[in-house]
Amino acid sequence: MNQDRRDRLRDAAIAVLAQEGGRGLTHRAVDAAAAVPTGTAKNYFPTRDALLRAAAERCAERYRVLAQALAGAGPGPADAAQLAALLAGLLRDVAGPGRTRVLAYLELQAEAARRPWLAALLDPVAAADFTTHAYLLRAAGLPAEPARARALTLALHGAIPHLLTGAPATLAAAGLDDLDRFTRELLASVCEEEDR
Amino acid sequence: MNQDRRDRLRDAAIAVLAQEGGRGLTHRAVDAAAAVPTGTAKNYFPTRDALLRAAAERCAERYRVLAQALAGAGPGPADAAQLAALLAGLLRDVAGPGRTRVLAYLELQAEAARRPWLAALLDPVAAADFTTHAYLLRAAGLPAEPARARALTLALHGAIPHLLTGAPATLAAAGLDDLDRFTRELLASVCEEEDR
Repeated sequence: MNQDRRDRLRDAAIAVLAQEGGRGLTHRAVDAAAAVPTGTAKNYFPTRDALLRAAAERCAERYRVLAQALAGAGPGPADAAQLAALLAGLLRDVAGPGRTRVLAYLELQAEAARRPWLAALLDPVAAADFTTHAYLLRAAGLPAEPARARALTLALHGAIPHLLTGAPATLAAAGLDDLDRFTRELLASVCEEEDR
Repeated sequence: MNQDRRDRLRDAAIAVLAQEGGRGLTHRAVDAAAAVPTGTAKNYFPTRDALLRAAAERCAERYRVLAQALAGAGPGPADAAQLAALLAGLLRDVAGPGRTRVLAYLELQAEAARRPWLAALLDPVAAADFTTHAYLLRAAGLPAEPARARALTLALHGAIPHLLTGAPATLAAAGLDDLDRFTRELLASVCEEEDR
């Protein structure tokens, strides 16, 4: 089978999940989104679970690339201000160019609560976030005990659905209407390193 | 129309959303879950959006009852230890008796990213959480500046999908495998009031 076409179908599955939800994820919708002949998606991914797995594996791959870019290349954030800017950039991506991928991830996460095989597939992706944030805190010279890295990671995870939904009262209550201030204050709260 | 039957159908819509996801939410499935004659759900809630709205309004109602019980009755938590125990109890409910309601809420949240009317309906529910947690921090004698209440609220929001999925590496990385320790350490991180 053709790897380019396979990846194109997997990207299409992510786009369909994001646009239509789990309900819209059919072989026909994936064929249409990938602009390939009807029957192609079924040929590569015969069942709906195979489609879900394809989308989940693609999400996990894309996520690994992002995590490696954060933790691997360059010296990392030099201080709290640089880390705050980096995290604000990531949150801006969630609400912007990354919206499709993140929305598909939320759908997969909801499906994972009913499908142990999918939960197992996404488990290392979510777990790696805690390691990445502990690394970033250390790189920025901030206290990075597990409890702090956990509070930071979970607060960022908690922010994601609110950013995707964009409901104004929640965004204001969460302080997510100003992402630069939000990440500065979040770091200050969990690390007590900046003035507030 | 009969209010008892209406509530029964709304509870059934929540159960179907939790068990089958947005994909499974059909009039027929709600009729079956409510053990009423076929056609009943369609009679009360003619469209699929009406079913979604019914489930969302019921979630919001149940949530208000919970929030009022937390913020209204009694003197509130007297100190950090009592607040940690209260929050651990809430998280235990998410993974236990409240699982159906919370799983349905996650499905609704994902649908809300595609449906502005649903986002508007859920907005005050999510926003109220930030107020409730600020109140609880104050009641417990802990610092309760907005940034702290936000970090606490978002970290709890972020914990919910992980608890529902129950993936072991993520639970361990998040510290959610011991909920009493988790809430104690979370409060310590965002409020710097306890020894760690």
